[in-house]
Amino acid sequence: MFNKIKVIAFDADDTLWINETYFREAEEEFAKLISKYETKNKIDQELFKTEIKNLVHYGYGVKGFVLSMVECALELSNYKIPQKTIEKIINIGKDMLQKPVEVLEGVEEVLEHLQEKYKLIVATKGDLLDQERKLEKSNLLKYFHHIEVMSDKKEKDYTKLINHLDIQPSEFLMIGNSLKSDVLPLLEIGASAIHIPFHTTWIHEEVSKEEQQNADYATLTNIKEVLSLI
Amino acid sequence: MFNKIKVIAFDADDTLWINETYFREAEEEFAKLISKYETKNKIDQELFKTEIKNLVHYGYGVKGFVLSMVECALELSNYKIPQKTIEKIINIGKDMLQKPVEVLEGVEEVLEHLQEKYKLIVATKGDLLDQERKLEKSNLLKYFHHIEVMSDKKEKDYTKLINHLDIQPSEFLMIGNSLKSDVLPLLEIGASAIHIPFHTTWIHEEVSKEEQQNADYATLTNIKEVLSLI
Repeated sequence: MFNKIKVIAFDADDTLWINETYFREAEEEFAKLISKYETKNKIDQELFKTEIKNLVHYGYGVKGFVLSMVECALELSNYKIPQKTIEKIINIGKDMLQKPVEVLEGVEEVLEHLQEKYKLIVATKGDLLDQERKLEKSNLLKYFHHIEVMSDKKEKDYTKLINHLDIQPSEFLMIGNSLKSDVLPLLEIGASAIHIPFHTTWIHEEVSKEEQQNADYATLTNIKEVLSLI
Repeated sequence: MFNKIKVIAFDADDTLWINETYFREAEEEFAKLISKYETKNKIDQELFKTEIKNLVHYGYGVKGFVLSMVECALELSNYKIPQKTIEKIINIGKDMLQKPVEVLEGVEEVLEHLQEKYKLIVATKGDLLDQERKLEKSNLLKYFHHIEVMSDKKEKDYTKLINHLDIQPSEFLMIGNSLKSDVLPLLEIGASAIHIPFHTTWIHEEVSKEEQQNADYATLTNIKEVLSLI
């Protein structure tokens, strides 16, 4: 199944290292800061709505997330949120951008083995500088030919990436934790994909049972199993 | 001089299309919004300081610029800035992200000629989604192999880019409007560069006379002159 593969791309957040956990923590902190105005449940829902509405402007990543938190706080408080609290929201973002990078178990072993035979790249969404910094902090940089920060992970984005790599879709394997972003679009364009779920998934990345039907991909519980598959 | 060149990279903002003008307009608008608290001169200076201080967190681009404007407004107003004004600052950013793209004169003609013989890429700083969107809006996408959004444009960033392209520095030519970002670092690593100044330069991109000494590059007044050089 994988004998044609030339390039293996790894998703970064929650595939190579922990990320979603930090967003969950930031959301908790945000909800506490504006708990005077709304219930935790309502705050979560409204923040998610604001993020989705703003995706077209900001794309993915921490900076857009912070701008959405500020916007959401202004609206939910009916513009009564104290100015000092807005500063605190901005500082949640700055803290997120300085978090340590916790590489997931088994990742380094897998990269070390695969780099001998394949060109390895990182294919991730998010803010460019933030992702580059995390890759550097992770000490995994040496295993990768380069990092591709993508504005989205739909079929057309992967087609662009594969053209840029000057290879065929059948020569491309993607490994990641999101069915929606790292698996299904790849299968649609004739590339391969391996799914390694992470315990937390952002609701925006969830897919229905129908969307998963007939999709031909392997699901692993630990990245180390990749070595016995390929 | 240019006979070894295989890849020609174009800076985007103020080389392919107008950009700095929109930042200047946004700064004007911002200064008006908080004119009650400080002089225009002081506001300009403090915003610039805030942007530079935040570069390490946010990198380049509109989203970081907006976050810096909000932070600067909070501080300059001693946290008295009305909440509605913060919303207006956020909207300055959203407007910037929806500006039309005005391609500079001669650009299309040059790209059309050069694409026959060279691999052309865009090498730009800024927000990923924003730069991709501008490239699409510009109708110039068809001339380029791909776009490289870079977190910075220092020597090490260009070295990374050239490695990623699997070529030698001597095979790489950069064309852009910023001496600091598009010309001098290239010459340092043995690549070539052509300088095409734009009428407005962000102060952060300015270089001293000393830094320019002994640098071997051509300066053109219009991009069309590239065709007689190469």
